[in-house]
Amino acid sequence: MNQGGKPKAVVLVSGGLDSATALAMAGDQGYACYALSLDYGQRHHAELAAARRVAQSLGALEHKVIRLDLTSIGGSALTDTRIAVPDRPAEGIPVTYVPARNTIFLSLALAWAEVIGAWDLFIGVNAVDYSGYPDCRPEYIEAFQRLCQLATRAGVEGGSFKVHAPLIHMSKADIIQAGTRLGVDYGLTVSCYAADQAGRACGRCDSCRLRAKGFADAGVSDPTVYQG
Amino acid sequence: MNQGGKPKAVVLVSGGLDSATALAMAGDQGYACYALSLDYGQRHHAELAAARRVAQSLGALEHKVIRLDLTSIGGSALTDTRIAVPDRPAEGIPVTYVPARNTIFLSLALAWAEVIGAWDLFIGVNAVDYSGYPDCRPEYIEAFQRLCQLATRAGVEGGSFKVHAPLIHMSKADIIQAGTRLGVDYGLTVSCYAADQAGRACGRCDSCRLRAKGFADAGVSDPTVYQG
Repeated sequence: MNQGGKPKAVVLVSGGLDSATALAMAGDQGYACYALSLDYGQRHHAELAAARRVAQSLGALEHKVIRLDLTSIGGSALTDTRIAVPDRPAEGIPVTYVPARNTIFLSLALAWAEVIGAWDLFIGVNAVDYSGYPDCRPEYIEAFQRLCQLATRAGVEGGSFKVHAPLIHMSKADIIQAGTRLGVDYGLTVSCYAADQAGRACGRCDSCRLRAKGFADAGVSDPTVYQG
Repeated sequence: MNQGGKPKAVVLVSGGLDSATALAMAGDQGYACYALSLDYGQRHHAELAAARRVAQSLGALEHKVIRLDLTSIGGSALTDTRIAVPDRPAEGIPVTYVPARNTIFLSLALAWAEVIGAWDLFIGVNAVDYSGYPDCRPEYIEAFQRLCQLATRAGVEGGSFKVHAPLIHMSKADIIQAGTRLGVDYGLTVSCYAADQAGRACGRCDSCRLRAKGFADAGVSDPTVYQG
């Protein structure tokens, strides 16, 4: 099953800039990468198409999309159409926070990892530009890693899982520079919370602002295509 | 939103005997219960119909079924039709172990809890008759509870989640006696790994054997309907 004896890693790939960079880093670190995306009823469905392009362009051995309808739970501007995506950043944890999202996503990554015999999970969370999401902090990632040992047959039988969050302390500009060095084509990625079906960005939401500022700060030409 | 000011609890309800008892206990402890079931591609689909009957009969305020296709991950006799459900208990962790299942289920329960403003999660895991599942042990439940604090907006803002596993140290007979005192109608529940569409049990799998022995040991009349 291993590609030339490489260790396997499950990489959460959303179609955005950060997770594309995390995938490139996992590959650069010598992992055979298994990309995992969740079709969770997110508004910006264009990101799943982007995830497919990203996984393919960065050489993932497999790209699995799991459908999980979080709209029935709601509670976020990203999963409940009654909550508006704001144009401007607000104080505190934003309405785009999806309750327990990273816990749900990492759980599924862990399940797949156990099935394919991977010990490494990659997630592109970031604690610098993270807009206040609780499940993007280092202490959260460490707690999930500890849970992996207790939660699985593989962990109980003595194996050791590692949850990699290589972007966690990087600025958006640093992420873009690192990914650019690794050959990430950011033109394939979609960050916008309100992207249209073709993946064109609104240019106004939190995520668009962070991304545009990141390219400017990095001194890297911004390939983002905007609407209208 | 509260029913007479009762605190809310999210209760994982599978349609089996244990989770029905956990739901009855949560209600008995004064919680307004929100029942959550996962349609994860399990072979014994009859258990979802049982979950509906159980949630209704025990007065759950709402019963949510979330569809999540774990068959695409596989790795268990319960989610991969290529792996046979064994007739006899084997050594170690059985093939009916679903990788990371309770972590996935508790993550979704946590998400719903955060949305509805519940601080209490109930799960009917059992470490006595648990057939070796790693995610049915007390140390796992405690680790997940710690994770809840770090994973959520509600936890970061100072709230305190509690993951209740009231059956964890009980024998199957004790569970049946406790549930019987609380008025659980076990005739509504399905435990069999190979139940038919009407919910009739095979009488041969691990789960059927444990259940039948539980009723015998408890001295409670067994309402299970068997196939053929």
